[in-house]
Amino acid sequence: MSVRVGILGATGAVGQRFIQLLDDHPTFELAALTASDESAGKPYREAAKWRVDTPIPVDVAETTVRRTEPDAVPDDIDLLFSSLPSSVAVDVEEDFARDGYVISSNSSNDRLAEDVPLTIPEINPDHLDLIEVQRDERGWDGALVKNPNCSTITMIPPLAALDEAFGLDRINVSTLQAVSGAGYSGVTSMEILDNAIPHIGGEEDKMETESRKLLGDFDGAEIEWHDADVAASCNRIPTLDGHLENAFVDLDDDPEVSDVADAMREFPGVDLPSAPNQLIHVFEDPERPQPRMDRMRGQGMQICVGGVQSTENGVKFNCLAHNTVRGAAGASLLNGELLHENGYL
Amino acid sequence: MSVRVGILGATGAVGQRFIQLLDDHPTFELAALTASDESAGKPYREAAKWRVDTPIPVDVAETTVRRTEPDAVPDDIDLLFSSLPSSVAVDVEEDFARDGYVISSNSSNDRLAEDVPLTIPEINPDHLDLIEVQRDERGWDGALVKNPNCSTITMIPPLAALDEAFGLDRINVSTLQAVSGAGYSGVTSMEILDNAIPHIGGEEDKMETESRKLLGDFDGAEIEWHDADVAASCNRIPTLDGHLENAFVDLDDDPEVSDVADAMREFPGVDLPSAPNQLIHVFEDPERPQPRMDRMRGQGMQICVGGVQSTENGVKFNCLAHNTVRGAAGASLLNGELLHENGYL
Amino acid sequence: MSVRVGILGATGAVGQRFIQLLDDHPTFELAALTASDESAGKPYREAAKWRVDTPIPVDVAETTVRRTEPDAVPDDIDLLFSSLPSSVAVDVEEDFARDGYVISSNSSNDRLAEDVPLTIPEINPDHLDLIEVQRDERGWDGALVKNPNCSTITMIPPLAALDEAFGLDRINVSTLQAVSGAGYSGVTSMEILDNAIPHIGGEEDKMETESRKLLGDFDGAEIEWHDADVAASCNRIPTLDGHLENAFVDLDDDPEVSDVADAMREFPGVDLPSAPNQLIHVFEDPERPQPRMDRMRGQGMQICVGGVQSTENGVKFNCLAHNTVRGAAGASLLNGELLHENGYL
Amino acid sequence: MSVRVGILGATGAVGQRFIQLLDDHPTFELAALTASDESAGKPYREAAKWRVDTPIPVDVAETTVRRTEPDAVPDDIDLLFSSLPSSVAVDVEEDFARDGYVISSNSSNDRLAEDVPLTIPEINPDHLDLIEVQRDERGWDGALVKNPNCSTITMIPPLAALDEAFGLDRINVSTLQAVSGAGYSGVTSMEILDNAIPHIGGEEDKMETESRKLLGDFDGAEIEWHDADVAASCNRIPTLDGHLENAFVDLDDDPEVSDVADAMREFPGVDLPSAPNQLIHVFEDPERPQPRMDRMRGQGMQICVGGVQSTENGVKFNCLAHNTVRGAAGASLLNGELLHENGYL
Repeated sequence: MSVRVGILGATGAVGQRFIQLLDDHPTFELAALTASDESAGKPYREAAKWRVDTPIPVDVAETTVRRTEPDAVPDDIDLLFSSLPSSVAVDVEEDFARDGYVISSNSSNDRLAEDVPLTIPEINPDHLDLIEVQRDERGWDGALVKNPNCSTITMIPPLAALDEAFGLDRINVSTLQAVSGAGYSGVTSMEILDNAIPHIGGEEDKMETESRKLLGDFDGAEIEWHDADVAASCNRIPTLDGHLENAFVDLDDDPEVSDVADAMREFPGVDLPSAPNQLIHVFEDPERPQPRMDRMRGQGMQICVGGVQSTENGVKFNCLAHNTVRGAAGASLLNGELLHENGYL
Repeated sequence: MSVRVGILGATGAVGQRFIQLLDDHPTFELAALTASDESAGKPYREAAKWRVDTPIPVDVAETTVRRTEPDAVPDDIDLLFSSLPSSVAVDVEEDFARDGYVISSNSSNDRLAEDVPLTIPEINPDHLDLIEVQRDERGWDGALVKNPNCSTITMIPPLAALDEAFGLDRINVSTLQAVSGAGYSGVTSMEILDNAIPHIGGEEDKMETESRKLLGDFDGAEIEWHDADVAASCNRIPTLDGHLENAFVDLDDDPEVSDVADAMREFPGVDLPSAPNQLIHVFEDPERPQPRMDRMRGQGMQICVGGVQSTENGVKFNCLAHNTVRGAAGASLLNGELLHENGYL
Repeated sequence: MSVRVGILGATGAVGQRFIQLLDDHPTFELAALTASDESAGKPYREAAKWRVDTPIPVDVAETTVRRTEPDAVPDDIDLLFSSLPSSVAVDVEEDFARDGYVISSNSSNDRLAEDVPLTIPEINPDHLDLIEVQRDERGWDGALVKNPNCSTITMIPPLAALDEAFGLDRINVSTLQAVSGAGYSGVTSMEILDNAIPHIGGEEDKMETESRKLLGDFDGAEIEWHDADVAASCNRIPTLDGHLENAFVDLDDDPEVSDVADAMREFPGVDLPSAPNQLIHVFEDPERPQPRMDRMRGQGMQICVGGVQSTENGVKFNCLAHNTVRGAAGASLLNGELLHENGYL
Repeated sequence: MSVRVGILGATGAVGQRFIQLLDDHPTFELAALTASDESAGKPYREAAKWRVDTPIPVDVAETTVRRTEPDAVPDDIDLLFSSLPSSVAVDVEEDFARDGYVISSNSSNDRLAEDVPLTIPEINPDHLDLIEVQRDERGWDGALVKNPNCSTITMIPPLAALDEAFGLDRINVSTLQAVSGAGYSGVTSMEILDNAIPHIGGEEDKMETESRKLLGDFDGAEIEWHDADVAASCNRIPTLDGHLENAFVDLDDDPEVSDVADAMREFPGVDLPSAPNQLIHVFEDPERPQPRMDRMRGQGMQICVGGVQSTENGVKFNCLAHNTVRGAAGASLLNGELLHENGYL
C-alpha cells in the first residue's frame, strides 16, 4: 500500500531531485508540490525551470503547484519532504509539524536542536526515536527529522566505520565541493571557471558540529555528542556534482591499512528501497574516487572511498558522494523510508 | 655586469617560463638553450611550441637549440637553469656540475641528497653553503642546487613563519593543484573537465619530505631535518595555474589569530631582483586567495594566505602560489640570483 | 538467433562505447575483442583503461584480447565493428574483408571510395547495396561499410529532411565540438580550459565531402553526389560529449518556419534495435539543444534541433548529437543492424 | 592638458574595465563615478566588488560614488563613459546629453537611432559628425555616441577590409562567446560547465543590424545602411573572455587567399592613445586565434583573424576580440578619444 507524500519547495534544484527520485518509487506516491506564492496556482512545468538530466515526469509537469502552508496541503498526505530555503523553513516546517505532518527535511535549520533527530539510516537509526521527546516537548502530532549537510554526509560513513572498529580521536578534513551544492544560481561562471574558492559560508561549522551529533549516543532522552575534534576547510571547485573530501584521522588503535579498508567495506547497510546494497565502496586504485566517474555509483547513494594510507597518528583517505542525491534529496528520501519502516507515518 | 646563463630543457612548459622570466632580467643574459636531440640544431621557434601568454622574445625565437651535453654549451656560461625531466636530469646534471657548471635546477631528482642544497632564498639561504660539502665530496668545480616541488614551496613560507614564532609540531595539508603542474600534456581534458583527481604520483611524499629538509638546520656539515609530522593529500582540479592548499597545523604555542597573521605578514623577504617586496600577503577576506584572481600577485612570486582560523590544536589556513612561476621557473631563478649574490658564480 | 560480433580496436574510447552499447543487445553477441600487439594476450580489464561511466561488463573484463589480424579472429564471427586508427584500418580492414568478414567501420579511411557504402540507416539505406559493386570489383566475400564522421552525422538528418521537402542549395555550417571526439588523450587540458580552438585537422573537409556523398543518389552502379555547396568551420570547445552545430541553409523553396520544423519532426526513422523512435527532436525553446542537457536523448541516438529561423535565403538552425554514440560507435552499430536486417551477414 | 571624465554605472563589470583602462591614461583624468542609489555615498571599494585581475587603483578605491543624475555630476566633466544597463540608460543618457554632457556609451539602447552615431574609430569615424544632426534635431548641447555590441565589433574590421577591397555581398556568422559578455552574474556555472548554449537574447539581431549601419555611408544628413545580407547564430561557451567567430562571406570579386589576408593586414588603424598599432593581426597558423592565447593582443584592442580560406562564393575566416576591452569599455574609450581629437569636447 502506497504512502502519499508531498514536497515543500518543489521547484528548486533539490526539489527537482526529489521528483526524479520519487518517480517509480515502490512505496511513495507523489501527491502534492508546494512552492513560493508566485509559483502557486501554476502547473509545475511552468513554475519550475526543469534542469535535471532526465525528462520531467508527465503527470508532475501538469500538477498544480500549491502554496507552502498547511492549509494548502491535503490532510491525507503522510509525509512531506522539505527542500525549502532555511530562512523560510525555520517557521514553516514547525507549522506543518504542529498541524500533524511528518517532515523529512534537507534544510539546515534546526539540525542541531536538542529534540530534532539528525539521522542517516545506516549510521544512527536509533536517533529517530528522539521524535518521542520532540512530541512530548512540543506537543506535536507530526514530527520533524533532518538529514545532515551534503559535505558532512560524505565523510560520516567511513568515519563511523573507523570509530566502531578503531576509535575516532580527531579529524582534519578538506573538501572539494561541486557547484550544484550552492543551488542552480549559487555560483556564477565567472567565479569558478579556471578557479577555486576556499570558503563556503557556514559549511565548515556544519561539518564540525553535525558530525559529532551524528556519531553521538542517544540514551532515550538526549544525544550525547561524540567528543572527537573536527576541523574542516571547505572549497568550491569547477565540478557539477559530487563532493570529494580528503580526511586525516587520528585513531585510538593503530590498524593496518587493509584492516581499515575492510572495516569500511564491511560496514553494514540497511534494507530500505533507496539504500545501496553496500554502503561504502573502497577503491584500490589511488586515482579514485573521482567526481565525474563515481558520483552515480549505487544510483548516487553509495559512499566511495580511496587512497587509504597510514599516517603517524592513524589514517588518511579520500571520500566522495553525490551531493544532491546522497547529500540532499536522497538523504531525506532515505530518512522518509526509515520513518515509514519504523511506523512513524 | 651581466651574467651569462643557459637553460637545460628549454622547450617544455617550465623552460618557456624561464625564457619569459629572463626577458629583461637586470643581471642575467640568456646565452644558451638546450633540448633533446630531435630539437638540437633547430631555431627555438621551430623546436618549441610556444604556449606562454606573452609573445616569444624575438632573439630567442631565432636562437639555435643545442644538445643537452656539456660539450655543446659554451664555457663562458656561468649559470644553468634546469627543467629537464628528472629521468634525464639525474645523469646530465651531474655531468654538467662535474664539468664546472653551476646548476639551479627545478628537476625533482637529488632534492633529498645529503649534499645537495634544497633552497628557498627567503627561508633557508644558509643551506646554500652545503655546496662546500658537495664540492669536497664530489670533487666538482661546479655545483648543483635544487628548489622544492611546487606544492611544497606554496606552504613553506607560512609554515616557516609559524615555526619561528610559535613552534611547528604537526601538519596536515590538502592541495588543489592546477593542471600546468603536470606539464603541457600531463592532464588530458577528458580526465579533468567536470572532475577532480585525488592523486598525483609522488607528490604527497615530496611534500612530506622536502618540507622537513627545507625547515631543517644546517650546522655547516649536514642538514638536520625538522621533526614535524607532515601528512599530505594531493588533488588535481580544473584550474590552469596556481596551487591552492588547506593546511591544518598543530603549534607548540597557542597564539591569537591576529598574531598568526602578523607573523606571516612580517616574515622577512630578501633583496633579490625577482623576489617580491613582501613574501607573504595575508587576506582578511575569507574567500581569498583564489587561483585565478591571486596567482599573479608579486609577478607570480608572492605567497598568498587567507582563512586563518584557530583550531583546537593550533591553526588552519589556506595558501596559494603560482606553480610554474614561484613553484618552478621563478624558484630556480631566485636561487640563481642567490648563487650570484653569494659569490658562487 | 544471435549474431556473433567482434570489435577491432576494442580498447580505445570508441571501442569502449561499442562494448557499452553491445551489453544486453537483443541480436548481437560480443565474441571477440582485438587490439594492438602490446595488448594481445591480456585480459581486457588490463589491456584497456576503462573510462566509460557505466561499469565494465563482467565477462568482457575477463575476455582475452586478440591480435588485430584475420587469423586471430574466429571464423564464426559474422560481423566486425571497427574503431581502429585510420592509419591502421586502411590495410587491416581490407585484409578482413578479403578473408570474408563483414565490417561496419567508424574509421575515416575509405569513406569516399567509390565502391564503399557510406551509410546512415535512416538517410540512405539503399546505398548499402553498393556492397554488390564492391564484391564484384574486389572479389571479396566479406564487405566494408562506413559511417560518416561525427560532425557530419549531426547535421545530415535535418539537412536530408530539408532536401526532401524544400530542396537543398547551399550550406554554411559552424561546429562546437566536444573533446571526446579527439579520443581520450586528443586534447590536453591546457589547450582547452578557458579556451576554444578554431581548427580540427581534416574535419572541415570531411563535412564538406561526406555530406554530399550521403545525400547523393545511388543508381545501382555508383553514387552521384549531391550538388549542394557545403562550407564548414570546425571548433573544439570545453565540453565532454555532444557536438553542437549552427547551420545556415539556402533552400530552393521558401517555407514557413513551422513547415521546416514539421518536415524535420516527421522525417521517418527506421525499425532497428538501436534506432530512436523519432529521428529528429525539434525544440521550441531557443536555448536548446545544449550538449550536457540533450546529448543522451534517445539513448544518445536522437538528433536534436532548435533555433529554427528564416533567413533571406532559407533557414538557419542548430543541431546536436552525441558524438561518440550517434556519431561513432552507435552509428556503426546501427549500420551493423541494417546489414543484418538486409541479409548481408 | 587633461580632459576630466566620468563613468556612469561604474560598479559593474564594464565599469571596472573602464577604471582599469583609464588608469594612467595620457589625456583623460577620471573625476567622477556614478552608480545606483544604493551605492551612492559609499566609497567605491565598498560599492563595487572589484573583480578585475589588476588591483583597484588606490585613489579610485576611496572615491565617493555619486547618484546617476546630471545634478550629481560636476559641470567641469567633459566626457562621460556609460556602461549603464540599457533599461536605465535609455532615459538617463538623454538627460545628461540635454544637460550638456558628451556621452560615449556602451549601452545597447539607441544604437540604431537615426541621429545617433554608432562608431568604431578605425571603420567609420566620419559618422561621428552625425552629432551635428543630433544636436539640431534634439536641441542638445551635449551629445550621445554609441559603440556597437561586442559580437558585432569583433567581425566588423575584417568585413570592412573585405568590403573595401572586394565588395561584401552576404555574411553568415557563428559566434563562440565568453561568459563575461553577460556580466558578472549573467551565466551560472551550472548552465555552462561541460555545456554550450546556442542562444543569446537579442544578440543575433544586433549583429545583423548594427553591422549594416556601421558599414553604411553617411552623406552629411543620414546613414545609408550597407545592403549586405547578414545572418548570425550566437552561442555561449565556457570561456571567460574573448569572443571567437566563424564568418562565411560572399564577395563581389574572387580574390586569392593571400590577397584577402593582405587586405586585412593592411587595413589602416588610427592614431589614438588606446588604438593598437595594427588593427588586424592575421595568423597563418590555422589553430589561431584562440580566446585564451590571443585576447590580450594589443592590450586587448587588436582584432585577430585566422583560418582564411576560399569558398565557392568568397571566403571563410575566424576572428577574435576581447569582448570587455575592444568589445565594450575599450570601444567607448576609443570613441571618447576620437571625440576629443575631433573637437567635440
